Amino acid sequence: MAEVVKTVLVGLGNVNLGLLKILIDKKEAIAEQYNTRFKIVGVVDSSGMAISEKGFAYEDLINLKHNKGKVNEITGFLPKAPEFIPDCIEADLLIDGSPVNLEHDNAGIKLIKRAIIKGWHVVLANKAPLVLAFDELTSLAEQHKTKIRYSATVCGGLPVINVLSRDLKLASLQSLYGIFNATSNFVLQELEKGVSMEEAIKEAQNIGAAETDPSLDISGQDTANKLYIIMKSFSDFSGSIKDIEIEGIEKVTAEEVQQAAKANTQIKLVASAYKKGREWKLEVRPTTVAADSFIGSIKGWEMGIEIKSDLYESISLKNYEADPTGTCAAVLRDMLDIQPR
Amino acid sequence: MAEVVKTVLVGLGNVNLGLLKILIDKKEAIAEQYNTRFKIVGVVDSSGMAISEKGFAYEDLINLKHNKGKVNEITGFLPKAPEFIPDCIEADLLIDGSPVNLEHDNAGIKLIKRAIIKGWHVVLANKAPLVLAFDELTSLAEQHKTKIRYSATVCGGLPVINVLSRDLKLASLQSLYGIFNATSNFVLQELEKGVSMEEAIKEAQNIGAAETDPSLDISGQDTANKLYIIMKSFSDFSGSIKDIEIEGIEKVTAEEVQQAAKANTQIKLVASAYKKGREWKLEVRPTTVAADSFIGSIKGWEMGIEIKSDLYESISLKNYEADPTGTCAAVLRDMLDIQPR
Repeated sequence: MAEVVKTVLVGLGNVNLGLLKILIDKKEAIAEQYNTRFKIVGVVDSSGMAISEKGFAYEDLINLKHNKGKVNEITGFLPKAPEFIPDCIEADLLIDGSPVNLEHDNAGIKLIKRAIIKGWHVVLANKAPLVLAFDELTSLAEQHKTKIRYSATVCGGLPVINVLSRDLKLASLQSLYGIFNATSNFVLQELEKGVSMEEAIKEAQNIGAAETDPSLDISGQDTANKLYIIMKSFSDFSGSIKDIEIEGIEKVTAEEVQQAAKANTQIKLVASAYKKGREWKLEVRPTTVAADSFIGSIKGWEMGIEIKSDLYESISLKNYEADPTGTCAAVLRDMLDIQPR
Repeated sequence: MAEVVKTVLVGLGNVNLGLLKILIDKKEAIAEQYNTRFKIVGVVDSSGMAISEKGFAYEDLINLKHNKGKVNEITGFLPKAPEFIPDCIEADLLIDGSPVNLEHDNAGIKLIKRAIIKGWHVVLANKAPLVLAFDELTSLAEQHKTKIRYSATVCGGLPVINVLSRDLKLASLQSLYGIFNATSNFVLQELEKGVSMEEAIKEAQNIGAAETDPSLDISGQDTANKLYIIMKSFSDFSGSIKDIEIEGIEKVTAEEVQQAAKANTQIKLVASAYKKGREWKLEVRPTTVAADSFIGSIKGWEMGIEIKSDLYESISLKNYEADPTGTCAAVLRDMLDIQPR
């Protein structure tokens, strides 16, 4: 019999719906390879929370959202603030797939803290809790002997966090350079075709990868959030998100991008971390790179990172994802990673 | 107190000497981050075996080899065939860093089997045991509840095996393309400069990365060995190494490489795996690829792989290593990975 993991889903948007689809498609493989079954005992969306001890069927939750339904319409709805869900049901695992909310002390963070205190493990696709409270959440988890995993927060399905924190764990980071936001990378590529910034952003939204409000993408804030999470996970960087110098691509023009291309270079929104003396210098800014460099080779919807360290010299990773499946698969990978082996 | 892992080193060449250096450099980090200390209780080289219950000092073993010494000159030498070392000393872990020997039923494989039967875990930098006896060794290990790790056998420090077998474990492989042999990749790059095959191979040997006998590199056999290990680890491929069609770069001329470059392409020694109907088709051969493709971007001493799967679309990894440090660090990563957590 597969081990049952009682799971609570926060957010029923692209990430958790994609996760539910993979849980259906890979149900047998999960049971066979990991001896595990995830029972969804709680769900939270903007309308509130619902709980079920016997578990919600994956298909029912997918259908609910396909029919534009809300959690407050289903059996098991509780008229309480969602942040109290850890007090309302017993569970083993919380999945946060809700949208980024960078308000301090928001309800999402309070929910996560309550879950950790109850002894639940936590898997995040949502970057905000890490950006706002990395140290607090990781030390709270340590104190309560629970695990936090968040490989889905950086570059979708590309296992950047896992490679850094597991495979390269003993290495000392020397520098890293990356493109962590596919929307802005796509927009820059469109500019090269002579399209205006406004049109390029619209095109990204039509394709469906850009947020309704793409300002986090274009301003460089999303890239900075990911750089922060990487550095907190893997290096001795001890600063805050405010220590990252951020310049977005708002002012980059089609002309500049085309001029760069003529010179066999590319303008990219590059995240970088390198040592200046003994201090880390972290930046996000439009940067001209050689077209045949690794960073220059990251096209359109791709994302990637180049890592230099004492033990491994240079290691580079990149991925292409046309839809959120890779991100959802990364959430599932984390869910399985925290199970006892 | 750090947990002591009694370790036997097979081979005292570049890999295990590099490993010993890292064990010295990272001693504190290993103790702090993993609560572990590796005590070398046995060593094997071409001259025989030596054992020590109190452990050989890392420095002494490095010095021995720097002075061109052999194991049969040190205290602890036993006049027995090295394959019997598992019967001569108690240990927890065997590291095989000996050179590739593709003779069937060779002493190296017999040693590994004896170690597994004694309950030792095994970390391989040597590909030969996997190429000759993958299924036998993995099922023997399962039967004796020991672990085999071998992330150092493919692309040095690049965590190809780990990313595939851990991060992408639930995904179904669709295809993969890779450059797994840096020597032949360097040789092809030299040809582009107009250098002859013979000179290019000499240059690779001078740099020190090519084997004294570089025929495994140039013939494509080394690339095929790595492709085989990857496919056995991650896919439902159930064939043998003989099912890989292999063509080396022996017949590639400077003229061909230069012609390709003029057409904005590159001739690379590409390993590929893709489905033909329901069967896997595995090949190693000189292949013309677009210069701006990922495979085309793998230059000189770099190695890399592009993986397509159902869950993660396209993920690409590459690395640059000028010396074997990355490979040695990969061995250490595996040694730490098998410790209980």
